Amino acid sequence: MSLLTGNSHSLSEEELDEYSDGTVKLRNSNIELMDQDILYHLALGSESHDLQEMFGDVKFVCMGGTPKRMENFAHFIMNEIGYKLPAGTQLQDISAYSYRYSMYKVGPVLCVSHGMGTPSVSILMHEMIKLMYHAKCKDPVFIRIGTCGGVGVEGGTVIITEDALDGQLRNSHEFTILGETIHRPAKLDKKLARELKALATADDPYDTIIGKTLCTNDFYEGQGRLDGAFCEFSENDKMAYLEKLRDNGVVNIEMESTIFAALTHHAGIKAAVVCVALLNRLNGDQVNAPKEVMHEWQQRPQILVARYIRKVLSHNGQLKSLFGHQGSIKSPRRFKLVQQESQAHE
Amino acid sequence: MSLLTGNSHSLSEEELDEYSDGTVKLRNSNIELMDQDILYHLALGSESHDLQEMFGDVKFVCMGGTPKRMENFAHFIMNEIGYKLPAGTQLQDISAYSYRYSMYKVGPVLCVSHGMGTPSVSILMHEMIKLMYHAKCKDPVFIRIGTCGGVGVEGGTVIITEDALDGQLRNSHEFTILGETIHRPAKLDKKLARELKALATADDPYDTIIGKTLCTNDFYEGQGRLDGAFCEFSENDKMAYLEKLRDNGVVNIEMESTIFAALTHHAGIKAAVVCVALLNRLNGDQVNAPKEVMHEWQQRPQILVARYIRKVLSHNGQLKSLFGHQGSIKSPRRFKLVQQESQAHE
Repeated sequence: MSLLTGNSHSLSEEELDEYSDGTVKLRNSNIELMDQDILYHLALGSESHDLQEMFGDVKFVCMGGTPKRMENFAHFIMNEIGYKLPAGTQLQDISAYSYRYSMYKVGPVLCVSHGMGTPSVSILMHEMIKLMYHAKCKDPVFIRIGTCGGVGVEGGTVIITEDALDGQLRNSHEFTILGETIHRPAKLDKKLARELKALATADDPYDTIIGKTLCTNDFYEGQGRLDGAFCEFSENDKMAYLEKLRDNGVVNIEMESTIFAALTHHAGIKAAVVCVALLNRLNGDQVNAPKEVMHEWQQRPQILVARYIRKVLSHNGQLKSLFGHQGSIKSPRRFKLVQQESQAHE
Repeated sequence: MSLLTGNSHSLSEEELDEYSDGTVKLRNSNIELMDQDILYHLALGSESHDLQEMFGDVKFVCMGGTPKRMENFAHFIMNEIGYKLPAGTQLQDISAYSYRYSMYKVGPVLCVSHGMGTPSVSILMHEMIKLMYHAKCKDPVFIRIGTCGGVGVEGGTVIITEDALDGQLRNSHEFTILGETIHRPAKLDKKLARELKALATADDPYDTIIGKTLCTNDFYEGQGRLDGAFCEFSENDKMAYLEKLRDNGVVNIEMESTIFAALTHHAGIKAAVVCVALLNRLNGDQVNAPKEVMHEWQQRPQILVARYIRKVLSHNGQLKSLFGHQGSIKSPRRFKLVQQESQAHE
């Protein structure tokens, strides 16, 4: 139990150097001694699957709340990096048999759903970090792509998290381990945040900002909403709270950032959180933007992350090799005609 | 903020009497003043849907982790209570467009997935309680059907929760509201627990017990597992912790019971948690039972809850009316023959 002393386990700059070969180290010597390591919630196992063969080339792990959003992102990033599937194949949900999370792989990009709230993210992070270890992935970057409520920030704004704060505005995540409460720093990579910010362009018809993110354990009472099943505070109390948040540099509220930051930092993995605001909470609680507008907003963090992935792959000379493959479709117009003609023959 | 005084808001026996007309009261006067109440995560709204027409007859709300399990339960309970769908119809996921939770309705039984961890359950509970209110449901009973790790209890054992305990073994759930920490009692209906226990039969080839349930925010470190991405304690520390749990009456560990108990109790809704143990944590961390065995185990809580639902409906004279409907299939054997013959005609 003496090891459970919290902050002493955050990585110093020296310790980070230990990860200089790029592979992900586990802070758990038990795993190597196990006959097999079953990643239950991913429907994968270290002895049932050749994880290095399947995942060894992964450079980017992108996560978001729903299976649908991550499936959409998989198709979007496939197009953005020019990745071609072999003829007669389609993307498959690798974790379908877990019935918990969905996972799609597009070359060097893994797209995984994490559900809602820190415990759901926690389970996934443990298994994703173990997956990176088993697969011997080198220098993977983890990025959460999400939605959030803005604080003094209009709907549609893209927000890159500088620091993730818990309900008491601490830049850490609280863990209860063997009945003991410890905190681990909820630190994200500030250089990565700046790199992402630099990829926003003057042509984007929306703002992309960096700021502090509040992470809560509830959507209603926990975020000061007046429209839950219970509300035991007044509108004045709520506004005073939101203004206090703003005065502390908080620009958005969501439900996953502290655990995502704390576990990636603890594993020495470079990570970022990029969310789009669905509303400005200073103006209300219910999300009222039309469906089409919301849909377009949710693409904005994906666009920014795609720019980053393209930039890194391009810098490493890997983008051209992906684009080099000949795709199935030579002429989209003729492709469409053939499809229509084929359908007409009953 | 003066209202946020925690336990003073638990329901006394006198207050419970105020719910004697059976409909679910909201402890939030704001809802009645709103133009519409959008239940985002259910893809339903108070003005877009006739919630009373759709859900007014609901008597049982059964919840579990995955969409798949709850879809299976919906089909199982349909058979158990003899509910017949109109010819040419099939069950539809009512909340499909939320991409968050799945919801199936089988007459008086709602079957809803809640995801993993207390925040995910929290969002669902707020919206389910508001749904009960808008639909004017009378005396709905909420039952969580789950899986868990046993503590000194063999895999396959069915466990009915007596009290839900948090990581510090408190019989409450901790909420952070407007930055303040409060606790609400995580109380379940003891009479309902006993009623469920009484429906286990001597013929069941497994034990059904009542005991205390530990609710954690993580599956790995939070439950003292040695096989997460991180492990900073020894096997001896782990065993000492699990034995401490057992000495405190804890028979199982899962990740949802405190919030489920706290919010149903706060709303004056009768509730129970019924889980099956997938392993005995005193013997190990990884779940090793074969798939077919696990599948059969997961049906056991469903069987118990089905007995309860049948008993209540039968007691109210409602079972016969459900069974009274003529189904589509007169002879399963001839039905199968017709299907096969139809397939053979290309």
